[in-house]
Amino acid sequence: MTLYQNLANRLREHIQHGFFKPGEKLPSVRQLAQEHGVSISTVQEAYRQLEQDFLVEARPKSGYFVCFRKKDNLPSISRPPQRPLEVSQWEEVLNMLMIRSNNKGVQLQHAMPDMAAPTLKPLLKTLADLSKQKPELGLGYADIRGIEELRTQLCRLTVASGCQLHPDDLVVTSGCQEALSVCLRAVTEPGDIIAIESPSFYGSMQAIKAANLKAMEIPTHPETGISLEALELALDQWPIKAIFVTPTCNNPMGYTMPEDKKEQLYRLAQSYDIAIIEDDIYGDISYQFPRPKTIKSFDTDGRVLLCSSFSKTIAPGMRVGWIAPGRYRDKVTHIKYVSSSMCPVLPQLAIAKFIRLGGYTKHIRQMRQRYEKQRDHLLNAIKTYLPNDTKVSYPDGSFILWVELNPCIDSMALVERCREEGVGFAPGPLFSATGKYRNCFRLNFSEQSMEKREWAIKTLATILLSFEQP
Amino acid sequence: MTLYQNLANRLREHIQHGFFKPGEKLPSVRQLAQEHGVSISTVQEAYRQLEQDFLVEARPKSGYFVCFRKKDNLPSISRPPQRPLEVSQWEEVLNMLMIRSNNKGVQLQHAMPDMAAPTLKPLLKTLADLSKQKPELGLGYADIRGIEELRTQLCRLTVASGCQLHPDDLVVTSGCQEALSVCLRAVTEPGDIIAIESPSFYGSMQAIKAANLKAMEIPTHPETGISLEALELALDQWPIKAIFVTPTCNNPMGYTMPEDKKEQLYRLAQSYDIAIIEDDIYGDISYQFPRPKTIKSFDTDGRVLLCSSFSKTIAPGMRVGWIAPGRYRDKVTHIKYVSSSMCPVLPQLAIAKFIRLGGYTKHIRQMRQRYEKQRDHLLNAIKTYLPNDTKVSYPDGSFILWVELNPCIDSMALVERCREEGVGFAPGPLFSATGKYRNCFRLNFSEQSMEKREWAIKTLATILLSFEQP
Repeated sequence: MTLYQNLANRLREHIQHGFFKPGEKLPSVRQLAQEHGVSISTVQEAYRQLEQDFLVEARPKSGYFVCFRKKDNLPSISRPPQRPLEVSQWEEVLNMLMIRSNNKGVQLQHAMPDMAAPTLKPLLKTLADLSKQKPELGLGYADIRGIEELRTQLCRLTVASGCQLHPDDLVVTSGCQEALSVCLRAVTEPGDIIAIESPSFYGSMQAIKAANLKAMEIPTHPETGISLEALELALDQWPIKAIFVTPTCNNPMGYTMPEDKKEQLYRLAQSYDIAIIEDDIYGDISYQFPRPKTIKSFDTDGRVLLCSSFSKTIAPGMRVGWIAPGRYRDKVTHIKYVSSSMCPVLPQLAIAKFIRLGGYTKHIRQMRQRYEKQRDHLLNAIKTYLPNDTKVSYPDGSFILWVELNPCIDSMALVERCREEGVGFAPGPLFSATGKYRNCFRLNFSEQSMEKREWAIKTLATILLSFEQP
Repeated sequence: MTLYQNLANRLREHIQHGFFKPGEKLPSVRQLAQEHGVSISTVQEAYRQLEQDFLVEARPKSGYFVCFRKKDNLPSISRPPQRPLEVSQWEEVLNMLMIRSNNKGVQLQHAMPDMAAPTLKPLLKTLADLSKQKPELGLGYADIRGIEELRTQLCRLTVASGCQLHPDDLVVTSGCQEALSVCLRAVTEPGDIIAIESPSFYGSMQAIKAANLKAMEIPTHPETGISLEALELALDQWPIKAIFVTPTCNNPMGYTMPEDKKEQLYRLAQSYDIAIIEDDIYGDISYQFPRPKTIKSFDTDGRVLLCSSFSKTIAPGMRVGWIAPGRYRDKVTHIKYVSSSMCPVLPQLAIAKFIRLGGYTKHIRQMRQRYEKQRDHLLNAIKTYLPNDTKVSYPDGSFILWVELNPCIDSMALVERCREEGVGFAPGPLFSATGKYRNCFRLNFSEQSMEKREWAIKTLATILLSFEQP
């Protein structure tokens, strides 16, 4: 056994015996080298081995951490019904949307970012200054594609995800919800079938419903995303018009589809000559640096409509989203115009300046790091307080994760009980066209206070106990 | 001949001989009584007679004015093709939307209100204060129906148009364009037929196109609006799903449908059991006081979806519109949610406060008076400079009017030539599903500067001269 294997085995044992806990920082390379009297490169090799085994992970500028990634803890690949279906569950979505946050409890149902971050202050100051000094800029009509300053900055930003866009390739929207709705309407006719991941974000699915489309839910793996094999079978069997995916920091699962699978998905769309709507709303808060590439980055023939917004990276109240619609630009521009005419100008100007002066990059860097820590803490709390048979997704970005409880638990009933106690989460059936995932729910971990998050999980655990008694 | 008839005849002669010009203020009742040695009531009776003859009009708190209302000067009732058609003209609309205003010319193509009014200052101050003092209010998610403070104030406002609404009856939207689009989608299925006025606002028509509907253009009278007789014939002949009208301060004609005709239109919709989408975006700047009733005010069974916004009364950049969707509330809420999720909060809060403290009522009162004067001035300029065969609508509200030139003039070519000279207007074909009204155009008279408006008409006249030479 080589020196590095020896060291790797020792560290593995420590982790397996809980001496180092999931999410905990491991000793630095230098420290381990001194402690064990080995070279720096030996320690690095040992860590590399453990990384390959998914036991530890390297975080830029922070060091090595114990992974949560244990296959037996992940939800299994989803098995949605294998036929196109109309989307239901609007009543349930509406009920959840109508719940107001109150200070008494911990509301983890909305995918709301942490908006108290000090790194947002320059943006808020710009907005306040513009409102005061140049209110006239916010009054008139403006370019229906969005203001050029913002489209230019968006082109700069998307270089990080492998895209080369021109300001004329972009259309600014009222958040990502409008972007998704407009794209759906641009690439389909009523009655068409759309292939989606399962589970999928309820907002996308309700847009599918409103556009009179049918959803073909495709089995989805909690680590690698939509099953390309199942998708290909579905494409053979049904006249699917477009694929609608959130492949980077998926909502609700948090996974990022590996780059080679993204490219394969694009090739599949090419061979069946269909469009891809790619929701990248969480892409900039992937914990990887540089951030993962988009499917759009492989797009050579304009069939990918990339949608995003600043709702998860800055704040949803800004209502600034955008589309890179590829070959569908003219139709997208038309539908955007009839959908809500132009977007308010001041938030666009403020965000453009925030990006231009580097404030945005600084902000998301800090948020990425914070969310990653908060994920680890939440995963720990779930492991500590929730039943042993609980499965949980392992987000590599965003601030949401997906919990799968014992199949006998009904999350719709659970959410009711938890609401009474002041804990909110998004029940699983909202994420399926047909109300599947009754034993699942989505949790938001952007909440800064560790105590609050822990209290929420403890409360949930207590309520769950009463549920398990038949 | 009685005293009052005698006086009326004298005044009529003065008007007919141009001693009092169209739009000019007539002597006060007191002044005339003294001058002619008759009683106040005799003068009042004389004016009443002239009002009945459409020679003079009374304006609240201002006195009597010489009317422009001459039947031979109005465009004739429209004669659109009598079958449902797909809407075209998007390229033309897009071209116009993309023209930026520049300071060199006078751009009268956009229906943009005067936003330099000092009465808007309190609103702008509130917005600036909120942005500075409570930026957090603008960050999070909010009620998808719009904030309650605003919906409450909207209920107060709509009392003036004869409505009795509850905050729960309202859904706030991103301007009126979203309101119209959402309503269209809520009451139709793709392929359905919508009856509309002709000419009609291009934004509504493009929304009809985007929703995969067909437009049935109904003959429309420039003083009384959509022809109920023609509408009834169309309803007999075609499976029309809804009627879409702008009956108060119509865009582009400016007329207000008389109240009894509004009620008849509602009864017609009832007897054919179809919905009415009522666009009231200009209703609050009717020159009448109190403002005209809406069709919605007659609605007893919830079939009227009333749409409006503050884009014409305050500023389009606010992007605050709303719907009173009647019995279609649930569907409207769903489509609004998928269309763009919730609306930005700060503009809603600022407008709610502006209404609550009386600023809005004060503002529109001043704008009404100013726009009425500017209408008279523009009508005078048109009469003075444009050819004698020019016909022009007589708006009784709003800040837009419709000009019909000699049938040999092509307004699409005219608009190109005028653009070179720095004068912008909206060419007629944009207001028809099929590109009719080639010899017509819409002018905006919200521009404050009398000189600029006059210069625009003179420039137009000069260019027209070169057009008429074959």
